Amino acid sequence: MINLLVVGTIAYDSIETPFGKVEDVLGGSALHFTNAASFFADVGIVATVGRDFDLAAIGFLSERSVDIKGISIDEGRTFRWEGRYGYDLNQAVTLKTELNVIEQFKPKVPDEYLGADFIFLANIDPELQSHVIDQLKRPATVVLDTMNFWIENKFSALIEVIKRVDMLVVNESELREITKEYSLVKGAKKIMELGPTCIVVKRGEYGVLMASQDELFLAPAYPLEEVFDPTGAGDTFAGGFMGYLANVGSVSQDTIKQAIVMGSVMASFNVEDFGINRIKRLEYNEIRERYKAFKKCLHFGDIEFR
Amino acid sequence: MINLLVVGTIAYDSIETPFGKVEDVLGGSALHFTNAASFFADVGIVATVGRDFDLAAIGFLSERSVDIKGISIDEGRTFRWEGRYGYDLNQAVTLKTELNVIEQFKPKVPDEYLGADFIFLANIDPELQSHVIDQLKRPATVVLDTMNFWIENKFSALIEVIKRVDMLVVNESELREITKEYSLVKGAKKIMELGPTCIVVKRGEYGVLMASQDELFLAPAYPLEEVFDPTGAGDTFAGGFMGYLANVGSVSQDTIKQAIVMGSVMASFNVEDFGINRIKRLEYNEIRERYKAFKKCLHFGDIEFR
Repeated sequence: MINLLVVGTIAYDSIETPFGKVEDVLGGSALHFTNAASFFADVGIVATVGRDFDLAAIGFLSERSVDIKGISIDEGRTFRWEGRYGYDLNQAVTLKTELNVIEQFKPKVPDEYLGADFIFLANIDPELQSHVIDQLKRPATVVLDTMNFWIENKFSALIEVIKRVDMLVVNESELREITKEYSLVKGAKKIMELGPTCIVVKRGEYGVLMASQDELFLAPAYPLEEVFDPTGAGDTFAGGFMGYLANVGSVSQDTIKQAIVMGSVMASFNVEDFGINRIKRLEYNEIRERYKAFKKCLHFGDIEFR
Repeated sequence: MINLLVVGTIAYDSIETPFGKVEDVLGGSALHFTNAASFFADVGIVATVGRDFDLAAIGFLSERSVDIKGISIDEGRTFRWEGRYGYDLNQAVTLKTELNVIEQFKPKVPDEYLGADFIFLANIDPELQSHVIDQLKRPATVVLDTMNFWIENKFSALIEVIKRVDMLVVNESELREITKEYSLVKGAKKIMELGPTCIVVKRGEYGVLMASQDELFLAPAYPLEEVFDPTGAGDTFAGGFMGYLANVGSVSQDTIKQAIVMGSVMASFNVEDFGINRIKRLEYNEIRERYKAFKKCLHFGDIEFR
């Protein structure tokens, strides 16, 4: 029985960083998300792939209680993305996007997924995100991601779906673009006026800021010596974040903060190798160890005042 | 008896931000530093001003145990800086720099300052920074700041003075420029090979990363709703940081981390008004309150593992 549902993309990515180059490696928001979340929750994926997709290559997910029957194999080629990073790995330059099967994607949630208490709507057309919410039959915690393309091209559909979700997880540049506020705190407040009660702002190598009605929370990113490939770090963060929430089964302020830390831990692994490779070979014990190391980097004891 | 010595600049700044514009307000690295540090330590300033400088305007510092007899009043006009910020307040555009009396500045440390255990060499010519170290007669914790101008124009003098100090406090772009390493962790290690045992990397609105031989430490910046004027935030950070160290009188790893948090708290006030205004009118109790609020933003309890 799955407790976490993700609707998003599965892709073949071609990536160039200062450290190397790969072609047609597994990627896409739903896959990065699931790869991370599967350490904590029973995940169901809704996504589309083309006839060219090698399903055996994601067989390893079944060993982690991932249900892939929501992946529909459609006529055409799998979605492809090609991008390049310079030394400043915060910004990808998109070289090519081939939508392929994505163009006709109309997500259908299998009945057995409708009982999930946690739903992640990864970055796809906001109209399709609303279409997923339409299919839900019981209350669930729905978390939304998006990207600049939809902000610029489907703004009103995006605002409509934002009104229907519980949390928004976006990059700081996306929050600024949606709200026209430079201040993240002010921007988060504007989004909360629309409905969501919690805004999680991803700041790449600088970590995460969370704003809710009563609280602000800051988590830096784990300080790695080398970042190899940041592709999918945001979705991996979301996977750790929501996997943790689904596992605990609650969304208290404390749980949300802990989930953000877990998301940050998972993202720190993702960037250590191309595509999904690092988290594919990750062991649960490594998560525990990195969390300990991370926590050590954040500890400073108590300041004495006169 | 002073326990903290700063050598740097006193300036008249003209600043334009999206929120307003001021002319010839008090500024400069030594003044921002002292303004913050004076809440914690007995500070002595070594700096130069011109005949046009209104000493009465910094009279308020005397009430905070600041010794200003190290300020020499020299023939000519006071150093002036003119800058503008856009909505991205991380980057100032320098419109004009008038060195004036700074051009002939040859810092002379008064004998009574030579007993200080903590010395901050704010951003001035690295040859002058070395000249200050030459005057010291007993071991002290010496902390160095610099800027891109010296990295580009006096690189070998800068490396020579880095070899002679205990800690380096720089912006992330400066660390990258000095070390030619994009990774801050790698860059910090390169600096430590030269001599300093602790590198404090300022990342503006994203906070601070500290690296020492055995530890990494991360402190986000306090999440303000509005940033009004970031001029002097780095020196204010350094003032809170070193004021705290000088007050505690030790440089253990824990003290350094707490001092970084205190520096971040002080910097969060500095950006709330133009120039030194906010910290000039700051009350000690506000520091305590902001620290509490800051600490709340960083707390996330303990993650449960299976």
